[in-house]
Amino acid sequence: MTSWEEFYACHLPPSDFEDNRQLLKQFCENHLKNKNQNIVLITSGGTIAPLEHNTVRFVDNFSAGNRGSASAEFFLDRGYAVIFLFRTKSLEPFTRHFSGQQFLDMLEINDREHTENPSINVKPDSVDILLPILRKYKEAQESNRLLYINFTSVSDYLWLLRAACEALASFEKRALLFLAAAVSDFYVPQDDMPKHKIQSSGAPKISLQLVPKILKPLVGNWVPQAFVVSFKLETDDSLLIAKSRESLMKYNHKLVIANILQTRRNRVVFVTPTSSEEIILTKEQALSGLEIEEPIVCEIIKRHEEFQATVAQ
Amino acid sequence: MTSWEEFYACHLPPSDFEDNRQLLKQFCENHLKNKNQNIVLITSGGTIAPLEHNTVRFVDNFSAGNRGSASAEFFLDRGYAVIFLFRTKSLEPFTRHFSGQQFLDMLEINDREHTENPSINVKPDSVDILLPILRKYKEAQESNRLLYINFTSVSDYLWLLRAACEALASFEKRALLFLAAAVSDFYVPQDDMPKHKIQSSGAPKISLQLVPKILKPLVGNWVPQAFVVSFKLETDDSLLIAKSRESLMKYNHKLVIANILQTRRNRVVFVTPTSSEEIILTKEQALSGLEIEEPIVCEIIKRHEEFQATVAQ
Repeated sequence: MTSWEEFYACHLPPSDFEDNRQLLKQFCENHLKNKNQNIVLITSGGTIAPLEHNTVRFVDNFSAGNRGSASAEFFLDRGYAVIFLFRTKSLEPFTRHFSGQQFLDMLEINDREHTENPSINVKPDSVDILLPILRKYKEAQESNRLLYINFTSVSDYLWLLRAACEALASFEKRALLFLAAAVSDFYVPQDDMPKHKIQSSGAPKISLQLVPKILKPLVGNWVPQAFVVSFKLETDDSLLIAKSRESLMKYNHKLVIANILQTRRNRVVFVTPTSSEEIILTKEQALSGLEIEEPIVCEIIKRHEEFQATVAQ
Repeated sequence: MTSWEEFYACHLPPSDFEDNRQLLKQFCENHLKNKNQNIVLITSGGTIAPLEHNTVRFVDNFSAGNRGSASAEFFLDRGYAVIFLFRTKSLEPFTRHFSGQQFLDMLEINDREHTENPSINVKPDSVDILLPILRKYKEAQESNRLLYINFTSVSDYLWLLRAACEALASFEKRALLFLAAAVSDFYVPQDDMPKHKIQSSGAPKISLQLVPKILKPLVGNWVPQAFVVSFKLETDDSLLIAKSRESLMKYNHKLVIANILQTRRNRVVFVTPTSSEEIILTKEQALSGLEIEEPIVCEIIKRHEEFQATVAQ
């Protein structure tokens, strides 16, 4: 048994797994009918590795979900159907522009005439900001081109990722995988996990196991015809390109988007086995409100189209 | 040097610490003028313990911030000034009732007349739910009775907690501390922390240190006259009361609110050195929309008033 088969054998699927599998299946079947419809699976946010069965503590990965949630909007703009597989409570497309308090601050109560039925409206000076986002949100809902599926633990994530791939496989080369989630590298095996909250009387040592590298079966078996893009986040610039190439060699997918934690909002490198190309957001572009995910998504779509054309020959 | 003095000596304050200290000071000075004004410091959400200097991975504590954010609303209702010291992105009073998507779904675009200036309003059937919450939110803003201060790491939290206590001390017995945050018990000392992201080539062992028990100096030195309430969360019911009593003996504060992870939404126990009293939310109450934080806050305020009366004699 490979390490990933063993992982699935040892970890139960999340409790709502069957519902999500059906949602994924139906969403894909709907869009498969349209022979020109491209589809992207975006994974976003970090996974957790619980330290206890009754989880009070867990190891988490830093990721707010900026990259994935922003990119989802740009893929929708360009006509893709989007499966957004995201960490519960991480950023989501459209709503990411506003925190809860900002929403409440945008609202005003309209009871000038002391009516019994006051209304609530968005303050005129907030309409300009909210309106284009709200229109795009409603358009995505109405065209049924956006499916939200959420996870918390790394094992939830791996179960849902495989189910999403099974649903996507029939799209063949029209399927794009944009694997931006920050997946745990380590976990505590179920058998090593204490049942109850670790008591704070001593200073414990936690022994971690490696999470199996799921890109291997994903690229090799689950969606062998799809265009797969993975992300590499490092804090040490000197390792970045070498580690990206290593990943491409090992998993045989199309593209690694490499970035450094501190500069990830304004610089990424597109790494293939034979090329590396930077995308940089200038200060002026950032100040004008441009987000780096827009040129990233543009460039990926260009490459996805070229890939589809090549395969078709 | 005690363990907590050592912790402050080894950990720098968060970068925006001085701004927050000023906010805390001004907020307290404003309300101190009113001799009848009670004030509560609510801590809410979990703290993280980073595993790396350039933090990609961290140990986190399970806590959405339900207890703290709901209680803040009930303390405001009862006239308290509220310092809400919360984990970034955990639940906040008022906005906790709505996720981002729910907000967008409540809105409709009003461009019936093809005007160039469309307006946005809350759908009539959502006004009923939103209106009472929005009114209370605006009232809290306008009366300046709610101060938000946020933290992420356990060291941020400890710096801000001490600054809040310093600002609160002059309220003497009118100050209430409601320490609901899920504070890390363990951390990785700065010297043991790798500078860069831990590479996933091996399975690392993480050695954790105990975070100093801050209730000791808090009750003993920082706010010795205040009414201090701490929380005890366990997953094993058989330890609950004994561990709560142990905590009261050790730190000499007034009250521990004890709860079990799985049943914390409908049962808590108020534990003092000589008594223990359950607060239970019945199924009917829960279905009618009552939250357990309402009777919890009521009971705490009752005890805070009795405490103030006793001390005054």
